[in-house]
Amino acid sequence: MYIGIDLGGTNIAAGIMDQFGKILLKKSIPTRKERFPEDIVKDIIKLVESLIEESFSSKADILGIGIGIPGVANEEGVVTICVNLNWYNVPLKKPIEDALGISVFIDNDGNLAALAEYRLGIMKDFDTGVFITLGTGVGGGIILDGKIISGRRNMGGEIGHMIVGENFYDCNCGRNGCLETFASSTAIIKYVTHLISSGEKSCLMEIAEGDISKIDGKAIFKCAQQGDEVSLRAMNRFIKYLAIGIVNIISMISPDIFAIGGGLSEGGKFFIEDLKKEVNKMLYFEMIPAPKIEIATLKNDAGIIGAGFLAEFCLSE
Amino acid sequence: MYIGIDLGGTNIAAGIMDQFGKILLKKSIPTRKERFPEDIVKDIIKLVESLIEESFSSKADILGIGIGIPGVANEEGVVTICVNLNWYNVPLKKPIEDALGISVFIDNDGNLAALAEYRLGIMKDFDTGVFITLGTGVGGGIILDGKIISGRRNMGGEIGHMIVGENFYDCNCGRNGCLETFASSTAIIKYVTHLISSGEKSCLMEIAEGDISKIDGKAIFKCAQQGDEVSLRAMNRFIKYLAIGIVNIISMISPDIFAIGGGLSEGGKFFIEDLKKEVNKMLYFEMIPAPKIEIATLKNDAGIIGAGFLAEFCLSE
Repeated sequence: MYIGIDLGGTNIAAGIMDQFGKILLKKSIPTRKERFPEDIVKDIIKLVESLIEESFSSKADILGIGIGIPGVANEEGVVTICVNLNWYNVPLKKPIEDALGISVFIDNDGNLAALAEYRLGIMKDFDTGVFITLGTGVGGGIILDGKIISGRRNMGGEIGHMIVGENFYDCNCGRNGCLETFASSTAIIKYVTHLISSGEKSCLMEIAEGDISKIDGKAIFKCAQQGDEVSLRAMNRFIKYLAIGIVNIISMISPDIFAIGGGLSEGGKFFIEDLKKEVNKMLYFEMIPAPKIEIATLKNDAGIIGAGFLAEFCLSE
Repeated sequence: MYIGIDLGGTNIAAGIMDQFGKILLKKSIPTRKERFPEDIVKDIIKLVESLIEESFSSKADILGIGIGIPGVANEEGVVTICVNLNWYNVPLKKPIEDALGISVFIDNDGNLAALAEYRLGIMKDFDTGVFITLGTGVGGGIILDGKIISGRRNMGGEIGHMIVGENFYDCNCGRNGCLETFASSTAIIKYVTHLISSGEKSCLMEIAEGDISKIDGKAIFKCAQQGDEVSLRAMNRFIKYLAIGIVNIISMISPDIFAIGGGLSEGGKFFIEDLKKEVNKMLYFEMIPAPKIEIATLKNDAGIIGAGFLAEFCLSE
């Protein structure tokens, strides 16, 4: 069996799974990221121990532990950069291995969700797929012939920081025009707020009870369905730039399938057909049909399952 | 020995090489692309025969033939799309194999130049590299762990069609904002022409003897060196968008090295340091140094050598 851990900015989710990715038991605790990294690492160790205990297993049953982080780790299992947790050069692999005596493997959470969708989800019948997660930010992972593409210093797969145009506000990373500033929930909220602040009328303000800071992605999707001009413009802009991101990935590595996950994908039925149309419109070789674009299927479990499969993959190599 | 063929819009260059990529003899004939494809294929066959004869070899010495095309071929060796030659669904592999009895392998010319730089040129000490060719268009190829990344239907590696911004004119592919419309010789010529036509003064018009259509890339590089405002703006714009293209590739696959080839790279000494600075400025994780960015070394022979190595690689698999 394997343990997969999804270390997020809000929660640490962990699960014990079999070699086929079936989760036998899962648990989640708050990250409380304002703490020292060492305390969070101690909590991860305790979480693993309680999973083992509560599933009536023993340490010897666990072949490996995989951990997905919202950042970058080096070959030694040190988290070099994790902006979201404010972690820089935090050893993660060694303290857990020392405490538990089980091998630990670490990768980016977007990469691991991609791996999960490839092994068990919507990308499972394809050789090469790209997972794009649309949440408060935009992340993702690239699978080529069954392998995660991390690139030099594990800096690859950062789909959200592909520059796709010019935007009225800068990205957190300091640059302008990143996909994340067009295709995340933060991005569409900022855009409608921008329009409403410049005097445009929108039924969003009614849903938000007059408090502009209460507008969320769900409200925008809903108002767009009702024909609200501001929300429709936000949706069209979101679709346009997401399509550019997808077409750019096609130009570069031409995957068989794109899987769209993350919070915004829950509203996928409102935009997936329009997204496909936009991508098709932009493909310059018209005789070659577009790759598949589908909503990811594993939802929140993708992080745990992908982390478990990372351990399985690394141990089988 | 292997024969590598670089099928271009102007010339067909071919060479006979050993397994180490050493060219023993090379020949070139005009493509005359206005002819029927079958006539061009016949010329390729004759070219191979004359190479064999003039190098005092025999057909039995040639283990395989590789062909680089400025387009896309399918698994059966049919050229599905080659805009530059106006070829659509032209069988290339079979007629040559039937005529010569030697195995033929086909790939995109940018991919093969990348393979050549990886095997014998500036990328040879690295696992993962991206070759970008800056000529009348922008092309390239991606090598990951020693393999060409072609993707689904061989549509990958089309770096020139990555959308990186908005431009004042559309790309040949019908879209707006492709890297090719910012970072090719065509692009910088169009940009200075656009500025001069809107009334800006430039010493380019003197070099071109008053004929705006005579302005070329070389003149722009030269005038920029002399402080000509219009040429400097064109150079800065070229560098800015090329840097965006490079940074986008880093975000996605994070290669170890970029090799810059093609006609414009001959003026590399005028821009390579500025390009590196611009890429460094745009990398959001400042503690992680940028990958290498170097001028490609194999120049015009890259096409032949890469095609030869394609044959060698395919036969050894």
